[in-house]
Amino acid sequence: VFDLVVMPDTLRVACCQTAPDVEDPAASAAGARAALRDAVEAGAQIVLLPELAHSGYIFRSAEEARAVAVPADGELLAGWAQEAARGDAVVIGGFCELAEDGRVFNSAAIVDGEGVVAVYRKLHLWNDEASWFTPGEEPAPVVDTRHGRIGLGVCYDIEFPELTRGLALAGAELIALPTNWPREQVSPAGEPTPHLLARATAYLSHVFVAVCDRGGEERGGGFQGASVIAAPDGAMLAAAEPGAGVQTLVADCHLDAARDKRRGPRNDALGDRRPEHYVTT
Amino acid sequence: VFDLVVMPDTLRVACCQTAPDVEDPAASAAGARAALRDAVEAGAQIVLLPELAHSGYIFRSAEEARAVAVPADGELLAGWAQEAARGDAVVIGGFCELAEDGRVFNSAAIVDGEGVVAVYRKLHLWNDEASWFTPGEEPAPVVDTRHGRIGLGVCYDIEFPELTRGLALAGAELIALPTNWPREQVSPAGEPTPHLLARATAYLSHVFVAVCDRGGEERGGGFQGASVIAAPDGAMLAAAEPGAGVQTLVADCHLDAARDKRRGPRNDALGDRRPEHYVTT
Repeated sequence: VFDLVVMPDTLRVACCQTAPDVEDPAASAAGARAALRDAVEAGAQIVLLPELAHSGYIFRSAEEARAVAVPADGELLAGWAQEAARGDAVVIGGFCELAEDGRVFNSAAIVDGEGVVAVYRKLHLWNDEASWFTPGEEPAPVVDTRHGRIGLGVCYDIEFPELTRGLALAGAELIALPTNWPREQVSPAGEPTPHLLARATAYLSHVFVAVCDRGGEERGGGFQGASVIAAPDGAMLAAAEPGAGVQTLVADCHLDAARDKRRGPRNDALGDRRPEHYVTT
Repeated sequence: VFDLVVMPDTLRVACCQTAPDVEDPAASAAGARAALRDAVEAGAQIVLLPELAHSGYIFRSAEEARAVAVPADGELLAGWAQEAARGDAVVIGGFCELAEDGRVFNSAAIVDGEGVVAVYRKLHLWNDEASWFTPGEEPAPVVDTRHGRIGLGVCYDIEFPELTRGLALAGAELIALPTNWPREQVSPAGEPTPHLLARATAYLSHVFVAVCDRGGEERGGGFQGASVIAAPDGAMLAAAEPGAGVQTLVADCHLDAARDKRRGPRNDALGDRRPEHYVTT
């Protein structure tokens, strides 16, 4: 008779930093799917794609965005599910969503081999996005997937600590954020903004944070290519070299570590909160 | 007839990174006061001192903390006010507070040349502090001083984005945090934790953040000496070299810049919030 010691699972997380092109949606979608397939074949269990991975970002009009928007129950996410099924993976990616009522959202989905698990519509729209997308109307979700408890946001959402803290409070072990970070955004102290914010967010709530950014250029606009996977201690497990463009980051993450919020012998990152004393409005 | 163009004020902020010694409170208090005097003489208008600047940090018992605790209306803060008066400065520093009812708090005060402007009792106690301090019972304050609108926290408080965001929502242009950051705390990715958190906090709420840490050793415990002054864009205006010990950081801060929360032509760091969709408990 002996005790069986089960080691906690380590999960392989991949960020597929592709380079969509709004001028060529077919190639953008194909590039995302190919990168996803490669990552699953290489053993990744959680695979991220960028924001608006199949459509590109710099639209010129609401009509143009609407023309490439797809329903959550359509072929795009069904294709991601097919790739997920090859390796029992979970896929998180951004897409231009056509809702049943005809509205268009900047959305992200969590998909597994059986299909769509969750859809989130970006709450905080950046710049001209407000000209073609409807802002989301539901909180950012935390979902129990076959590979851990995943919280979901999109790009600019990471600049709202209320949102990311809320995902941690709802039990997220990994906060996943598809992004399209514009190159002209100032990088504080030489560090890409997504790297700074992913590290601080991970540290503050003792969670993993995966940002899947994009490379490439569109219509004169460039992107930072600043994907990053941060650990609960704020360290970067993997980070794209700024400007390096298309690449896939991989990190093996012990997601269970994010459940333990202790800080030293007497403190707890979430348990020490004093909500009755916070100003929230 | 002409328009008078008034340039917004630039304020000189100083962090006096002293080295208190819990074994010698008299020397600790004198060291803090001397550093404060030097900073005011050098033209600083906002001067920070560390957490528990006059007493040291590593107590052995509640009795020991109580023995050095002082009332907010006592000689200690009156002395800081005298130094402030020499240069019309505002002083922010941590002290071991003896309350009227006999309880002992880990407090910080804002003092100007006329006396005590505000006292804050640390809400989030770190490690053994809970054995000698009573946790605060009031929100962290934002105070209109003669040199800008200052929000106040102490050390571990910076790890609660609810608190720092709340200070920004209440209009803080500068968030001031006296700290005693233990050396053994892990530094994410090689960067001192206070530097990471000050930069991210400043960027997220578009405020200035000044952390006044301490150097020196006490009873076998060391401190990071990781003072930092961060700008609203997340850049470090001044930062102590880790391990360098006693020094005073200075940065000229255009505090008015923190009032403008715009991010690009269509976004606003606070105005874009969607409070009805955040999970807060």
